[in-house]
Amino acid sequence: MLSRGFNATGVEAILKQANIPKGSFYNFFSSKEEFGLAVIDKFVADRFELLYPIFSDESLPPLERVRRSFEILIECFEGNDCFKGCLLGNLSLEMSDVSENVRQRLEQALQIWAGELTKLLLQAQKEKAIPSDMNTEMLAENLVSSFEGALLRSKVKKSPETLRNFIHFYFDIFLARKEE
Amino acid sequence: MLSRGFNATGVEAILKQANIPKGSFYNFFSSKEEFGLAVIDKFVADRFELLYPIFSDESLPPLERVRRSFEILIECFEGNDCFKGCLLGNLSLEMSDVSENVRQRLEQALQIWAGELTKLLLQAQKEKAIPSDMNTEMLAENLVSSFEGALLRSKVKKSPETLRNFIHFYFDIFLARKEE
Repeated sequence: MLSRGFNATGVEAILKQANIPKGSFYNFFSSKEEFGLAVIDKFVADRFELLYPIFSDESLPPLERVRRSFEILIECFEGNDCFKGCLLGNLSLEMSDVSENVRQRLEQALQIWAGELTKLLLQAQKEKAIPSDMNTEMLAENLVSSFEGALLRSKVKKSPETLRNFIHFYFDIFLARKEE
Repeated sequence: MLSRGFNATGVEAILKQANIPKGSFYNFFSSKEEFGLAVIDKFVADRFELLYPIFSDESLPPLERVRRSFEILIECFEGNDCFKGCLLGNLSLEMSDVSENVRQRLEQALQIWAGELTKLLLQAQKEKAIPSDMNTEMLAENLVSSFEGALLRSKVKKSPETLRNFIHFYFDIFLARKEE
């Protein structure tokens, strides 16, 4: 589903890969959409397991933790040879217009992610690492969306270059100018 | 295809919408993939028809033309009630891992778009509207990818808010600080 999307992934292929006899899918899920929601939940849980140790690493300044959390996602993407990417982003474009349940689940997951970043950005703001007049909630959402866009571009390019540029522009230039 | 993606759009539905008799699809296209490539080409041609008058509007400073070109795309998205979005972005995530021909066509289209922005950013740099040490080619690609990410997020949210924030952060804050 991460590689080929929701629609190109057939229930039969899922059962085959999971080594589960044909016909038993509907013992577990009432529909393919319900299965999709469970896949999103699992993806979000795995992602938080990966990111939470970084978000809570008090040995690093908060803005550095934000940067590092994106860098580790870039490393995962490179580990997949620039295939797959982020399930949330992939399903966002494929499913937001066609399944209201999937759309709501994605909205929730993206809000939680931005919410975690907002907490760190607020701390960074208190420590004067980012300007005091910047709306941290809006900035967190902008960071998440620009990251997803850079991932999209890197997936087409089959190179992490656009993602590296995202890190460079945001953390070395846009948010690095603190001459207040 | 713009709403539902490549895989969820069947050849039969395409023929029905186009009022063309069943069976004649393969008189025009050798495969659904070839049809997809033609749809991308048509989308790119239409988009350039929309954007070219802005890119070449000498009554506006170059950086303002860049901003305006994104704003007009946001207006189109709002006109569709925050459905559909950008075919290039949608197909990027759905098709880059599964069709090398589609991937290459998307890569080409995204490069041309960034290339047009690079020309304007170089002019803006000459006029000292953006810092002299900024790599305009990298910045153009970052702008395109962050725009696509904001569009993705707005498509999930069914609100143009993330896109408006993209404009605000880039053009009122990130690129507006010219205190060299």
